[in-house]
Formats: sequence, C-alpha cells, structure tokens
Amino acid sequence: MIYIVGVGPGSKDYLTLKAIEIVKNSDLVVGSKRALALFDIDEGKKVILSKNLIEELKEIINREDLKDKKIAILSTGDPCFSGLLKTLLKLGVDKKEIEVISGISSIQIASSKLKISWEDYNIITLHGKEDNKYKLLEAFNNQEKVIFLPNNLNEDARFLIENGINPNTKIWVLENLTYENERIRAMSLKEISLSKFSYLTVCIYPV
Amino acid sequence: MIYIVGVGPGSKDYLTLKAIEIVKNSDLVVGSKRALALFDIDEGKKVILSKNLIEELKEIINREDLKDKKIAILSTGDPCFSGLLKTLLKLGVDKKEIEVISGISSIQIASSKLKISWEDYNIITLHGKEDNKYKLLEAFNNQEKVIFLPNNLNEDARFLIENGINPNTKIWVLENLTYENERIRAMSLKEISLSKFSYLTVCIYPV
Repeated sequence: MIYIVGVGPGSKDYLTLKAIEIVKNSDLVVGSKRALALFDIDEGKKVILSKNLIEELKEIINREDLKDKKIAILSTGDPCFSGLLKTLLKLGVDKKEIEVISGISSIQIASSKLKISWEDYNIITLHGKEDNKYKLLEAFNNQEKVIFLPNNLNEDARFLIENGINPNTKIWVLENLTYENERIRAMSLKEISLSKFSYLTVCIYPV
Repeated sequence: MIYIVGVGPGSKDYLTLKAIEIVKNSDLVVGSKRALALFDIDEGKKVILSKNLIEELKEIINREDLKDKKIAILSTGDPCFSGLLKTLLKLGVDKKEIEVISGISSIQIASSKLKISWEDYNIITLHGKEDNKYKLLEAFNNQEKVIFLPNNLNEDARFLIENGINPNTKIWVLENLTYENERIRAMSLKEISLSKFSYLTVCIYPV
C-alpha cells in the first residue's frame, strides 16, 4: 500500500496526527530531505528524493520487494492540490493501491495570514500548467479576486504586463510560509518582474 | 487575542499539532460540543456554543474580563473556507486581534477519498450563499468539474432539475467524512431530490 501523506506547508506545527501515525507505521518513508526532517524516522527506513523525482518514484513503485510493504510518500502541502497524487496516478499506480492523507496547503496558510476566506477567490496553480497563465490574465482583466501559485513569478508578472495589465498593479507576495524566512509583501507587478523569489511562493490579488 | 482554530473535518486524526498547542495554552476554549470533544480541556475553560452561535460569539468577544485573555474559537474544517473567520470579521473584530490556524477542509478529505486533485475543479459553497446556486447551475450546464458544499442538498438538486439539468445526472455525495457514519455514494439528482442528507455533506460532479 502506498500512503501519499500531506505534510503541510513546511513547519512541523501543521502536521496532522494522522500524518505522524502513518509515517510511524510505514516500512519505508520517501520524501525530500526537508519533508523527511519533519518526522522522527529510523535512518534505515528513509529514502531521500532528489531532483530526479519522477524516475526515483517510478523505481520505488516498481520494486518487487516492496509490493507488500507500507510505503509513505511525503507530499508538501496537500497531495490533492498541485501535489504528488497526480504524479503517482500519471505513473500508472492503481487508485486502489493508494491512500491519501490530506495536508494543509500553502493556499490555506496564505489565507490565514491575510485573514481572507478563500471561497471568495479564484484559485489557480501555474505549477507545471502553462495554460493557466491565460486564466490568470483573465482574472486580472476582470478584476476578479485570485489566489495563485506562480510557476516562475517574475516571468509570470512580465507575462501579465506584456498582455496589458497595469505594471503598477499591486499583489500580495507570500514567500516561505511557516518557515523562519517567511516574508509577506505587497509589491507591484513591475517590482516583481525585476526580482527573484523563493520556489515556495503564493500570490494574492488584489491587495 | 482571539485564535480561530481550524479543527479539520471531524476526526481527531486531522488535528494539527498547532491546533492542539493553541488550545492547550488558551484561557478559554469556545466551540460546539463536537469540536470541544476533540481536545483534552479542563471543564472550567470550556464554553459550549449552541445554535445561537452569533449571539453567543458576540457576547464573548465583548466581555471586558476577557480583553487580555487568550481565547481559542474552534472552527470545523478550515476557518478560511466557509468558516468562522468571516463570521468574526462580520461581528466587527479587528483583524489585528485575530490569529487564524488553518485546518483541513472537508473538500480536501473528499478529494483524498476519490483521489482527485481539487485544482482541476470549480469550488463552490452554498452555505449561506444563495446566489452561488446560479454558479453551480452554470458549471453543470457547461459540464465543468465542480466540488460543492450544498446548503440543503435535496433542495439544491431540485433547483438544478427545475432549471434544466438532466435528473439522471449522477454526482458523488460524501457524507460525514472521517466520522464513523461516513458514507460515500454516487447518486442521481432525482434520487437526491427525494432523500435527506447530513449537514456535513460534500458533493462532486461528475462521477
């Protein structure tokens, strides 16, 4: 059985009791160094994923000696939002072989920080979804509220500006939420287009 | 300080470590009987909310003797999704006086059960939002994927049928998620229009 375990935004504070229990009872725990460090796991049970994520996951799910084992795969945020569930299904894992443990998404933490209700917002992820840029543009054009996960934020800002959005438009940029280097700023698209950002960034429009 | 603490969908399994810690360190813990039962709290610190929620919350936030106390208000699911954050802001509480602790929403649990990714779905809540019925209708008309929190599910199904949606259209009905009486069924709008459902229901279209 494969357990895809949502580990939340990054801080241990947002682990659920269920995530902790599943990891404790698994034969193998697979994840990024950062995600693995959230738990107390025997060294022998850890498998650290590197940048070659897809290949490494493929190898693990096809290993004969793991067929009857409990494998926990750690997924940042919620596995069902821009998370590892989709990745594993794409690799051909049968839904019956998977159990998913929900985790807190960075979108939720961003909402909690700004004290907004995310049911009032369009939610758009640009992570690996090039086409969603046009949905984002439409939201800005219509001045609709939107929470988005950028792909490459300065490029995304340039895209909006090049397509007619006012460069002085301000949005919230929330980086590294729940980490020690958390940073929350209101910035104009122009400023953003000239800056660099953490991979762990959530944006919210309007300010 | 008022801490609005997301307690997740209902089972203790989905409490976060942060929710547990905040509740432990609060001077007063306010919530439904069901939510309070998830924690280990001294009887003297508990305030049980009844059906007169708004009035009771108003009284608590205005009590002079609580001005410098730490008050935890428990919110089912995520306080930032159809949760108590909006309720407290409407009651006039200053954002600076609030800290919000994100919780797992029933929408996330529903996605984990069906193993779908909710970034691919429209998310619509009908809880206290009459107008969103029309958004829901539009999604069905356009055969767009949608996850919705019904207001009164059999009435909502009748509304869809009366507005031209095929009564044989099937949707997922997920009731009492994470509780012992959890139930997940694929049902037609017609069947739904003739049945009664738990208040704790999430629906997903298509099947």
